[in-house]
Amino acid sequence: MYERVWTVRFSDTDPFGIAHYPRIVDAIHETSDMFMQEIGFPFWEISRKHGYGLPLVEMDFEFESPVEAGDEVTIGLTPTLGDRSVRFDYEARCDGEVAFSGYEQRVCARTGGEGAVEIPDDLRAAMERYAEE
Amino acid sequence: MYERVWTVRFSDTDPFGIAHYPRIVDAIHETSDMFMQEIGFPFWEISRKHGYGLPLVEMDFEFESPVEAGDEVTIGLTPTLGDRSVRFDYEARCDGEVAFSGYEQRVCARTGGEGAVEIPDDLRAAMERYAEE
Amino acid sequence: MYERVWTVRFSDTDPFGIAHYPRIVDAIHETSDMFMQEIGFPFWEISRKHGYGLPLVEMDFEFESPVEAGDEVTIGLTPTLGDRSVRFDYEARCDGEVAFSGYEQRVCARTGGEGAVEIPDDLRAAMERYAEE
Amino acid sequence: MYERVWTVRFSDTDPFGIAHYPRIVDAIHETSDMFMQEIGFPFWEISRKHGYGLPLVEMDFEFESPVEAGDEVTIGLTPTLGDRSVRFDYEARCDGEVAFSGYEQRVCARTGGEGAVEIPDDLRAAMERYAEE
Repeated sequence: MYERVWTVRFSDTDPFGIAHYPRIVDAIHETSDMFMQEIGFPFWEISRKHGYGLPLVEMDFEFESPVEAGDEVTIGLTPTLGDRSVRFDYEARCDGEVAFSGYEQRVCARTGGEGAVEIPDDLRAAMERYAEE
Repeated sequence: MYERVWTVRFSDTDPFGIAHYPRIVDAIHETSDMFMQEIGFPFWEISRKHGYGLPLVEMDFEFESPVEAGDEVTIGLTPTLGDRSVRFDYEARCDGEVAFSGYEQRVCARTGGEGAVEIPDDLRAAMERYAEE
Repeated sequence: MYERVWTVRFSDTDPFGIAHYPRIVDAIHETSDMFMQEIGFPFWEISRKHGYGLPLVEMDFEFESPVEAGDEVTIGLTPTLGDRSVRFDYEARCDGEVAFSGYEQRVCARTGGEGAVEIPDDLRAAMERYAEE
Repeated sequence: MYERVWTVRFSDTDPFGIAHYPRIVDAIHETSDMFMQEIGFPFWEISRKHGYGLPLVEMDFEFESPVEAGDEVTIGLTPTLGDRSVRFDYEARCDGEVAFSGYEQRVCARTGGEGAVEIPDDLRAAMERYAEE
């Protein structure tokens, strides 16, 4: 599992002092970006260097408890690999409790092309190090 | 059904010229805000005036085709009412095709309180005008 | 002068119920995008069709009074044309009072190129309709 | 001077592969939030615990060279203290060159009150450690 800590900022929070949902989605999305950089296949390089991308086809999240400015939220990402797709499962914890969780379903697609292609072996190997056994 | 048109802006778009996912989520979220204003129960008033809110507990969206800067995307919202919760179903169309669709599940909760409460009759009546028969 | 109305949304607001500064900047930036579309030279087209852009080189804003969720803020934009640059002056009013004001300085530059070029005549003519006499 | 590194993300970038201006402003604003946390007076606490805030009254920024996804941008913040106000000067560098720079002018104000008050001694002392000699 890949993990990062998201500090909720004042500018993320609403009149009740808790994070706005779109700001939580920003943090989730940033986590996928950080993960891809960590494994050596940053989103900003794979299309340019390798000619493919991982567009999002579905996202499904549950919000279990609110987070406040100053909270240190540990967001974990676990990839589950298919042939032509990958699912990123997320679990965010704050003070030991789940704050939000869910997944993004992504497909592997040639840049500018139609339909899904097989996930290249090198990307697959890099992701598998973070997959569940 | 409630409908609004979202014009995708240059500042919403990515290196491929299509809208970033978090910006699509912003537009969806803005649609719920516009709907609540339209029916006379804006998010910014219900907690102050009526003492309750509609926090989000789940969101689930599918992205079927990308949208580009300048696209006029018609986002429709249909509420489905439960006793203590409401589901907002969304469908976004551009040039006649579905671009993205999904739902938000929201519960009715007293401000600062625990657990869900029944949706007040006046809010229920205001939403039902936009519900499916 | 070009004008648009920005409705401050719940998701723009902070624990004091007033708009976060970055959300105000989003609204200002959106106004420039709407203006360029209005005059027939949308940001998303000028580089593709005409091969130039209007990158921002400076922004300077004063925040005079806060705006709250539900406020209808009229944001006015007045262009002032130079040879190779344009300045967008903004004034935002809410209930008759100035809420924020300032300007963006932009240069005309060939896409991917170095240095500023003269503003093309057709763009100049389109902008001048909104300039101060 | 306080410094933090901002990694430009794919979701910050535009069709030319460079960061959208509003995303740069988000990063600047986040830097002020991180600074206040670093010195022990986080924005989310000062109003609640001490009854004052540092609302923004002016911002002025110059954009000297664009930043791209993957760029590691070092953003420095230097506070300059007045009696009832503070100015945060920013300079952002990438690969040794200034990418953008500018300042935010903030006033010290009692929460919910009118007008500026003197910056409390403890906050002043905490900021002065990062001020220029």
